[in-house]
Amino acid sequence: MDILEKLNWRYATKEFDASKKLSETQLNLLLEATNLAPSSFGLQPFSIVVVEDNKLREKLKAAAWNQPQITDASQLILFAINTDLSEKHVDDFIARISTTRNIPVESLAEYENMMKGSIKQLPKEELQTWQAKQAYIALGQLMVTAAVEGIDTCPMEGFDKKEFDKILGLEDKKLSSVVIAAVGIRSATDKYQALPKVRKALDELIIKL
Amino acid sequence: MDILEKLNWRYATKEFDASKKLSETQLNLLLEATNLAPSSFGLQPFSIVVVEDNKLREKLKAAAWNQPQITDASQLILFAINTDLSEKHVDDFIARISTTRNIPVESLAEYENMMKGSIKQLPKEELQTWQAKQAYIALGQLMVTAAVEGIDTCPMEGFDKKEFDKILGLEDKKLSSVVIAAVGIRSATDKYQALPKVRKALDELIIKL
Repeated sequence: MDILEKLNWRYATKEFDASKKLSETQLNLLLEATNLAPSSFGLQPFSIVVVEDNKLREKLKAAAWNQPQITDASQLILFAINTDLSEKHVDDFIARISTTRNIPVESLAEYENMMKGSIKQLPKEELQTWQAKQAYIALGQLMVTAAVEGIDTCPMEGFDKKEFDKILGLEDKKLSSVVIAAVGIRSATDKYQALPKVRKALDELIIKL
Repeated sequence: MDILEKLNWRYATKEFDASKKLSETQLNLLLEATNLAPSSFGLQPFSIVVVEDNKLREKLKAAAWNQPQITDASQLILFAINTDLSEKHVDDFIARISTTRNIPVESLAEYENMMKGSIKQLPKEELQTWQAKQAYIALGQLMVTAAVEGIDTCPMEGFDKKEFDKILGLEDKKLSSVVIAAVGIRSATDKYQALPKVRKALDELIIKL
């Protein structure tokens, strides 16, 4: 496989073919791949909301500048951070490590305390920024995986996050929307797929030291 | 290619084999792939610093909790945001679109004004957070590409950013460090490669609506 060819094939799909849905297998592969993304400490301080319901999506569209991807994509994969990230999340993570690697929780005390200290010390806003950044790594991993599999995506930041949280009932779940990947199959008529990618020249982007 | 197999092969490499360097071809492929990552508006509001110089890396190591990846990786790929992101960057981008797609700059006036308005309206800190998030997408794209190519990476947030900026002379370039991917080849003795990945169960991570 030529990975650069796949990455060049990818573009931010503006027009999805609303008649084409991803198969259960395709969607699961994307979610598994997203779950495998690395995160700081391995903590995965976010949740993923997969939105398929058409009525919900109609409402979301109005809170996203009426962008057609919201309703025409096969699904929306929305990343949301935990607004109450706390010791509880660290405890759950430590329990997961213990189970997965078959080691006693007690042997992880140092790691546990380091994480708890790190979370406690950050002001709320910085903590949420840090969580969002982890979600963006996962977004990157999701989009590359999709490209490798011939699945289209559109990353979307342009939506009313508070309104999305209300529509999706995320506030009650102590979650807050960060970014979306609309996923599906491009429409043959989306003119953007034919445009050459605009990127910095490597020597503009890169400083070598 | 089984992408999940590649993503499972990847792990945050703690111990690189310092005797093994990436080839020029491998490094270029990683940089090309990183450059192809999507960013908000397509603006790519960051630079990449590739650090190979050993003396510099010795200094950086002291500002990164003496983590051995800093000196033992083949290279450090450091993402840095522009601290002076301004109309100038938008103008450069508009010029790039115009050249790449062979369309007059004037026809892009609406897009140009939208971007300039968007940048102007954000408080400095939010602007920098937004830039950093774009870098994190590229970091994700870089790490998946590396995994596909059998190249190891370690994402690193745990370093003294101000000190890095000083050592690398980034302040003068109006750049500010955000995150690093150490890249290279894992050491056969790195015990972490054998550990099973710890991840949320999909039904813990995901809410379906």
